Amino acid sequence: MIVLYMSMSLDGFVVGPDDSFDEPMGRGGFRLFNWLDDRNGDGPSAQVYAEGQATGALIAGRRTYEHARRWQGDHHDGVPMFILTRHVDPDDVPPGTAQYVTDPAEAAALAKAAAGDRNVMVHGAGAAQALLREGLIDELELSVVNVLLGRGRRLFDNLPAEYIELEQVRQLPARDVTHLRYKVVK
Amino acid sequence: MIVLYMSMSLDGFVVGPDDSFDEPMGRGGFRLFNWLDDRNGDGPSAQVYAEGQATGALIAGRRTYEHARRWQGDHHDGVPMFILTRHVDPDDVPPGTAQYVTDPAEAAALAKAAAGDRNVMVHGAGAAQALLREGLIDELELSVVNVLLGRGRRLFDNLPAEYIELEQVRQLPARDVTHLRYKVVK
Repeated sequence: MIVLYMSMSLDGFVVGPDDSFDEPMGRGGFRLFNWLDDRNGDGPSAQVYAEGQATGALIAGRRTYEHARRWQGDHHDGVPMFILTRHVDPDDVPPGTAQYVTDPAEAAALAKAAAGDRNVMVHGAGAAQALLREGLIDELELSVVNVLLGRGRRLFDNLPAEYIELEQVRQLPARDVTHLRYKVVK
Repeated sequence: MIVLYMSMSLDGFVVGPDDSFDEPMGRGGFRLFNWLDDRNGDGPSAQVYAEGQATGALIAGRRTYEHARRWQGDHHDGVPMFILTRHVDPDDVPPGTAQYVTDPAEAAALAKAAAGDRNVMVHGAGAAQALLREGLIDELELSVVNVLLGRGRRLFDNLPAEYIELEQVRQLPARDVTHLRYKVVK
């Protein structure tokens, strides 16, 4: 199963304004990660975090990947990473477990095969949009943070004017965040 | 207390694409109101609906007001309606309990006075944004519907790049919707 994991402000932003390589979360965007202070506790935020860490492969977009300094080659537990990009430079050998893929469907197939019976994590707005457009995401795990950022990069953007129906799977209120999980109806 | 009541898709839209006087919710936007089928039951959706209906005054923006055919002069229970607009035509006498106001702070003051010890309902993206910018909204009651609309009119848009901190008040999952209530931290 392919699951999107993202922290999002209530107004839909996953990065603050003016994000760049030097300020990868944009101005103030790290506000979205306060709830991770509870990742090692025993509440819902720890549960959601642990589920993400238990995924067996990652799909991310190129911007997220670069802004995250390529996760130094290891997003978590050394799982295979499939980086969606428009252009592959043959001289660019990505570190660690990463490989570049230009087609979302190919990334999904490779990641599912690599993850085996574990889930695949999707991370980043670009990858989310590319996979949603192709109907390749099975569930959404959105950590909706108690803040309006006002500006920044939106998680849901550049999608066609077509319904994507969802089913509620789970709602977990926690300190500073509400974890909302949905199944994509296909 | 001034409370924003809005139904919103998970991707942040309160109206579908291409809204107009003839199609006031845009294409497919009435999808956001399916949960109102439960408004007369005894579950959370009925509770949230009843709370909205118990408000003692309304603030809405001009677009919402016109697209709703001016609510034929009565949004609910004949409560006073304050319509935010940039321009008042002296020949335009609004029906029923409506009056035009050009200043958000004045609309807030008039509506609070009119509502007495009841809450004030704010409705519509334009009014929400105008009042949020001025710090005039106390709580948000967002009915987050299980759908991505992809395009349309966003509830949270045109806001400055400044944090608005929120506190969780209540999370009520219901059929096809999750009712999220927040307090605006001032």
